Amino acid sequence: MKKTLLFLSLMAAPALAGEGKWTPQQVLELDPAWLKAQGLQVSPKKLWDPKRGTGLLAGAVNVGGCSGAFISESGLVITNHHCAFSIIQEHSSPQRDLITQGFLAKGRAEELPGKGARVQVPRSFTDVTKEMFAAVPAGADDLARQKAMERKEKELLAECEKRPATRCKVASFDGGVQFVLIDSVELADVRLVYAPPRAVGEYGGEEDNWMWPRHTGDFAILRAYTAPDGSAAQFNAQNVPYKAEFFFPLATEGVKPDDFVMVLGYPGITFRALLADDMAERQARYYPRVVDVYGELIRILEEEGEKDPAGKIAVASTLKGLHNRYKNAGGQLAGLKRGHIVEKQREAEAAVVAWAEKRKEYAGALKARAELLSLQAEKGKAFEREFLLDAMRVGAKGPALAVTLARLAQERAKPDLEREPEYMDRELPRLKDRLEREQKNFFAPADKRAFLALVRRAQALGAGERIAAIDKHFGRTYSEKDVSAKIDALYAGSKVLDLTERQKMSVETEAQLRARKDALLELGFDLATELVALDELRDRRLGASVRLMPEWRKAVLAHAGKPVAPDANGTLRVTFAKVKGYTPRDGAFYTPQTTLAGVMEKHTGQEPFNVPEKVAAAANAKRYGPWADKRLKDVPVNFLADADTTGGNSGSPTVNGKGQLVGVNFDRVWENVANDFGYNPDVARNVNVDVRYVLWLLDQVEDADGLLRELGVRKGPKAQESR
Amino acid sequence: MKKTLLFLSLMAAPALAGEGKWTPQQVLELDPAWLKAQGLQVSPKKLWDPKRGTGLLAGAVNVGGCSGAFISESGLVITNHHCAFSIIQEHSSPQRDLITQGFLAKGRAEELPGKGARVQVPRSFTDVTKEMFAAVPAGADDLARQKAMERKEKELLAECEKRPATRCKVASFDGGVQFVLIDSVELADVRLVYAPPRAVGEYGGEEDNWMWPRHTGDFAILRAYTAPDGSAAQFNAQNVPYKAEFFFPLATEGVKPDDFVMVLGYPGITFRALLADDMAERQARYYPRVVDVYGELIRILEEEGEKDPAGKIAVASTLKGLHNRYKNAGGQLAGLKRGHIVEKQREAEAAVVAWAEKRKEYAGALKARAELLSLQAEKGKAFEREFLLDAMRVGAKGPALAVTLARLAQERAKPDLEREPEYMDRELPRLKDRLEREQKNFFAPADKRAFLALVRRAQALGAGERIAAIDKHFGRTYSEKDVSAKIDALYAGSKVLDLTERQKMSVETEAQLRARKDALLELGFDLATELVALDELRDRRLGASVRLMPEWRKAVLAHAGKPVAPDANGTLRVTFAKVKGYTPRDGAFYTPQTTLAGVMEKHTGQEPFNVPEKVAAAANAKRYGPWADKRLKDVPVNFLADADTTGGNSGSPTVNGKGQLVGVNFDRVWENVANDFGYNPDVARNVNVDVRYVLWLLDQVEDADGLLRELGVRKGPKAQESR
Repeated sequence: MKKTLLFLSLMAAPALAGEGKWTPQQVLELDPAWLKAQGLQVSPKKLWDPKRGTGLLAGAVNVGGCSGAFISESGLVITNHHCAFSIIQEHSSPQRDLITQGFLAKGRAEELPGKGARVQVPRSFTDVTKEMFAAVPAGADDLARQKAMERKEKELLAECEKRPATRCKVASFDGGVQFVLIDSVELADVRLVYAPPRAVGEYGGEEDNWMWPRHTGDFAILRAYTAPDGSAAQFNAQNVPYKAEFFFPLATEGVKPDDFVMVLGYPGITFRALLADDMAERQARYYPRVVDVYGELIRILEEEGEKDPAGKIAVASTLKGLHNRYKNAGGQLAGLKRGHIVEKQREAEAAVVAWAEKRKEYAGALKARAELLSLQAEKGKAFEREFLLDAMRVGAKGPALAVTLARLAQERAKPDLEREPEYMDRELPRLKDRLEREQKNFFAPADKRAFLALVRRAQALGAGERIAAIDKHFGRTYSEKDVSAKIDALYAGSKVLDLTERQKMSVETEAQLRARKDALLELGFDLATELVALDELRDRRLGASVRLMPEWRKAVLAHAGKPVAPDANGTLRVTFAKVKGYTPRDGAFYTPQTTLAGVMEKHTGQEPFNVPEKVAAAANAKRYGPWADKRLKDVPVNFLADADTTGGNSGSPTVNGKGQLVGVNFDRVWENVANDFGYNPDVARNVNVDVRYVLWLLDQVEDADGLLRELGVRKGPKAQESR
Repeated sequence: MKKTLLFLSLMAAPALAGEGKWTPQQVLELDPAWLKAQGLQVSPKKLWDPKRGTGLLAGAVNVGGCSGAFISESGLVITNHHCAFSIIQEHSSPQRDLITQGFLAKGRAEELPGKGARVQVPRSFTDVTKEMFAAVPAGADDLARQKAMERKEKELLAECEKRPATRCKVASFDGGVQFVLIDSVELADVRLVYAPPRAVGEYGGEEDNWMWPRHTGDFAILRAYTAPDGSAAQFNAQNVPYKAEFFFPLATEGVKPDDFVMVLGYPGITFRALLADDMAERQARYYPRVVDVYGELIRILEEEGEKDPAGKIAVASTLKGLHNRYKNAGGQLAGLKRGHIVEKQREAEAAVVAWAEKRKEYAGALKARAELLSLQAEKGKAFEREFLLDAMRVGAKGPALAVTLARLAQERAKPDLEREPEYMDRELPRLKDRLEREQKNFFAPADKRAFLALVRRAQALGAGERIAAIDKHFGRTYSEKDVSAKIDALYAGSKVLDLTERQKMSVETEAQLRARKDALLELGFDLATELVALDELRDRRLGASVRLMPEWRKAVLAHAGKPVAPDANGTLRVTFAKVKGYTPRDGAFYTPQTTLAGVMEKHTGQEPFNVPEKVAAAANAKRYGPWADKRLKDVPVNFLADADTTGGNSGSPTVNGKGQLVGVNFDRVWENVANDFGYNPDVARNVNVDVRYVLWLLDQVEDADGLLRELGVRKGPKAQESR
């Protein structure tokens, strides 16, 4: 033990090799010798230059909530199929079904622009902690504190976004220990270059989602464009490919077990810093309620979709999201139990408390923790009502769109800096896109039944936790017949679900909207009133948290005595990992790579295991080209690594020690879902598409010569020749 | 390749190391050097002495359709829990629930005798091929041929069984290439010494059945008794433990991966010599119909059992059998498909045909094959009717018992040697036991619904394949109401389902039975008429097969040019194997051992994963005694080997190269179910209870000091001391 410590600076060695979603700055604080020993072959300084605030890590970009990566100088971006799905869907029709067939642009002119598709490339990171706290007036209560900080944040963003085509974000680290202003270029002209058939990109569907062994080609290739002068611009035929300063060339040799890899990207949110009581509440109530409520919505959408082919297409995208959330919640519950995560957190917390109790300087930390615990207890009391109110925003499109329109009108009446963040001018284009896009996802019979289910649940709430808007519009007690009839009437009498009318509404004032006497819109206003109050309550809670949490976290970090990566917050991170399998249960071992033979082994001819003919033909003929792995004697399809990832890492580049792309991250394994609450090296595995499967598809199946040339990859022998 | 051949005599090396259920005689034909290289440490001559016709292999005994093994000089027999289940059930009551609690006899006086439990110890093997064929009169047609051979068989058995407490059997090998008369001592006083709680012995239940990873303690310990003079005898308090000449001492060190093991026992039936067309028919019709019909019966019994606790207990044993058959059929279908077994057999057959076509002496073999193929095609036409007629014998106890009583009366009227084999005097005690035992398994609501389902299916048969008895008693078209009412009336008006009356009926003549005017019995006589005709048709087919198959098989064996183990036929066999895991599918590997930690990992507190408290307490306290595996650092529970087993091998001793018991075979893995049709070394794995799990339970959980002492095993430290 001592010997090891001699070689590693105590402050610079993470507790577990695979653990940690490191910030770019932290990478430079880790011992370079340790990084080299792990397998990093380039200098950490190449990964990140703190002076410029950029580096190779910035080759990983944000693709609308997902991650992605530049893989060529000329703006090619690789991400997940499921991250590019809305562009593919947008250009699909029964006549030209790109979802089923996949898509390959034969030349740049054929590339398909995506409405609302955005690529953000980070440009600079600035510590704004002082500014943020300085904005809080003396004696402010928690709500005022939060409002002041929110105001400050808006000002910082407004200033930052004065520069054209710029997207900024103030990110909070460690619950408020640090605030960082992140400045990104936003590329708004993003086009689809290649998507595999859905049966490849989603092979295994919901059945294999979160699972291993896996055989999914979950990737797609986009291209970002700029104006001819290189500045970011909206779609225009004259635009030219974006010139990427940093990108990841493809590692045609792929990976093998025990190889070092890094996964870069924008992990969304994790909860490892939560107090054990807060974790326990999620385990006891939040995830079980997700399983219950979203499980019901899934059943409804599936049943209604079965009755109508057009309906099935309409609900597909919503269902996909619901399924993902539902299965995730199940995995969190299983993992929290299996990993004894709450118990471990409780122990870890107790250790910090015991340590802090001996140190006068941390008296404040202990006090902060005590107050956080009592706030948590208080919050728990309103749980059921708040869960359902939140569900009203997303569970059925009728009320959700009505609420959005109502809130939009109210907020647009205010000066920009005083609005709720999601209604500020800078968000309006996205909001507009969503108001339009949702039309494709709307299927009245399913939507009405989903709303009915939510109303039924709301009407079953206890006396102290009623949702007034529901009581007002549907009465206090549930009757399926009555509520159904009311919902039918609401939908029939409303223009909210008509795209053209909705677009008009989106620029009308509250008075204009109210004058429409649209009952669904009225319900939207009533729900909005309660949601505004809820948001304010949450602002107050957040204000308290930002006041208290940093105090506590400082004690936790000091107690750790070594680098601790902060919880994910949607900002650029990197995790260092090894390609490796795992033991899912006694008597079984999951090997870290799957193959084309495994794809065919699962093929049943029925969704979700229906390999497209051209893929099956090449696989059955063993037409591997140069893409077979020597050891496996087959084309590798997916691989596992022990990277520390979460949602938002979808589409993350997985790169080798030289900084070359070896895969595209697209999932975690089931046993690892609860790593959002704690890293367990035994089962912490992320799932990646092997770059050789990407190359094999492009080469042997699609004959995408032009694209391969652009990627600097030598094509294999012609498909015909190798037969 | 050549080098290997230098060390092995070509004629004496099997094609695949693990393949082959070798007869005792064949063991002596295998190259001793090869056996030694595999890991056999004792001389093959110790396994079998051809002069005496016995040897160590005879330490493996037949336990009523299962296998078992002597593990002490004093008559202790180890077999599977599921093989001893009827004894356990027999002594269980709500007041003293041995099924749930398990049982340990504190001394010999407490051991529980089992009604109908029998242990058969082989005594001699005699080739009777010549006698069998000599019995066929010149010019006999196929039915006469079969009747003549059956008559000869009966004569041989009668002669053989003149010796007291003797059980004989004429076994056909390779479809009639050879007939062997096997003479066994039958021990009829068999008592239960130890059974674990069902939650151990059946841990995982139907869910884990045929599965890996597995954590089931599927074993029980019996003791065979004889009269004080050593002769076999019925139960008597004065009886003394059987003195076993051959037995397998327990290998307290257990096994590790790659260790050599032998599995000895009485595999029931396999189909590897079937012509490909016959295999194809089973794949296309027989197994799908089992899944369909038995699947329906399972649903019925489960639903009805749920409505009544007593009913649930009554149907448990029948359900267990149905489930096993049902899941087996599914596995056969999956394995036949996965292993391309029919296609492979077709290729192998084509190779033999091509080889034989070049050799004049095999012209008869080719002609025989052609005739077998046309017989197969003919047989296929009557498939559906015959399948349902067979189902009438077992699917519902009402008609099944009525048929048995009807047939019994008819057959008992004939001289013993002219009866159908199952109604000969030598079988009557077994039959009587069954007539009595079935009372415990009878639950009227479930039985009537099962019968209803069979009638519905029979009424749906095509015009050319009607079951006349069903048409007569229920009409030609199905109406749930009418048929239900008729079944209610049949059951209500019958004494067949009354144990006392049934026992009386079992000794009455046909005239006496008919005079009872019992409508269910009348149905039994009508069904019996059709079943007799079917049996005769089958005898005719069998006669043809015995005439033709040996011709064809001789060509197959000559073409192979190396030892080929014959299909299983319920006779003593041994298979040579290694402890090893396997790859069930791309991306996963199943390790060959499971542990106590894995038992606890599966524990949910709900059946079938509800570890008994005393077991959980010892496991959680890691109270392993001396039974932990050093490498696993835990008590091993089950292990895999690539032994060539099938049904009938349940309870087989798994012994090491020194002839010591290392485990008890109890299952095959799911991927290996179709090995009945062909051995696939990639997935051919049998599942064994590790002897150390047996010892751990006896020592650390049960404190079975006396039993351990008798087994010559030094007990671990007292449970209390090791806490």
